[in-house]
Amino acid sequence: MASPEIDALTQALSRLPGLGPRSARRAVLHLVKKRETALDPLLTALDRVARNLATCSTCGNVDTTDPCGICTDPRRDDRSLCVVEEVADLWALDRARLFPGRFHVLGGRLSALEGVRPDDLAIDSLVGRVAAGGIDEVVLAMNATLEGQTTAHYIAERIEKYPVRLTQLAHGLPVGGELDYLDEGTLAQALRARRPVA
Amino acid sequence: MASPEIDALTQALSRLPGLGPRSARRAVLHLVKKRETALDPLLTALDRVARNLATCSTCGNVDTTDPCGICTDPRRDDRSLCVVEEVADLWALDRARLFPGRFHVLGGRLSALEGVRPDDLAIDSLVGRVAAGGIDEVVLAMNATLEGQTTAHYIAERIEKYPVRLTQLAHGLPVGGELDYLDEGTLAQALRARRPVA
Repeated sequence: MASPEIDALTQALSRLPGLGPRSARRAVLHLVKKRETALDPLLTALDRVARNLATCSTCGNVDTTDPCGICTDPRRDDRSLCVVEEVADLWALDRARLFPGRFHVLGGRLSALEGVRPDDLAIDSLVGRVAAGGIDEVVLAMNATLEGQTTAHYIAERIEKYPVRLTQLAHGLPVGGELDYLDEGTLAQALRARRPVA
Repeated sequence: MASPEIDALTQALSRLPGLGPRSARRAVLHLVKKRETALDPLLTALDRVARNLATCSTCGNVDTTDPCGICTDPRRDDRSLCVVEEVADLWALDRARLFPGRFHVLGGRLSALEGVRPDDLAIDSLVGRVAAGGIDEVVLAMNATLEGQTTAHYIAERIEKYPVRLTQLAHGLPVGGELDYLDEGTLAQALRARRPVA
């Protein structure tokens, strides 16, 4: 019933994560009713990103410049490198502004099931960055999944011959976590890594 | 931390209904990672809508043509006219494909509180359409709110001198409604409008 243009926009929006057909229709209605304050700014922003989109050839981040804003930020510490599976992980860590160093995006995780091998990930380029020197610490920030941890082990083996400190994210109770509701794996990790009370 | 372009896109998306800052970031990440299948189609669709957006000068619908697709659809019945408050209401009714006639969007509802008077709504143009003849039935599909019903009464008074059948949407139990959870107003309406069992 709606025009093909409006239908196409509804469909394009409904494919975004977090938006279904219903909320996409609501969003389209909002856009067409608020042309100046909603539709035009979104169009401009989308167009600018589309024109400048680039994958950083140093770290694998997606940004509007190459090298990306993180790799060129002079306030960041060159001596710390945080390795993550996906761009989403980099963004999540960076959003919290907790890590002051540089990043390296692998582009996935090793997986026998999905046939993902070391050559499919940006591991050689990671080893290259470490081998080039100037890095004191490599933080392996893989997901706490079997595949994530397998990937971390593999990378640790590849890197251990270089004079860098290798660390990984702590495992244990999440903030606000209640013992009663946590899985046994997390409880086991938390117990094994228990610390003296300060 | 992200580039200004990506920040601007995140903000533009987060202003859509149904998307907050978190889901907007997820959506942006999806867009930048799936350039060909997500970003480019959305950009094209948005651009086409922006170029062609128009408010129908006949019924007040928002579409990419003027007159809109509903006003020009030859399969629709010219003799039935459904009056709604907002474009959103038209889309909701039209989505259900239950009403085969034409529409008229008032652009709001009479409201003493918000200072909305008859002149602020597309009521004169509605009366004009009815006065022009060729319409058998006018369905007043206002919201079942005090202001919606006030608006319906006002329009009924303006139209009653013309030879058209004036109807309004039935009030009563919504489908799936449980008496226990319904408000007294709805229960009173449902009881007052009770019908003989078929």
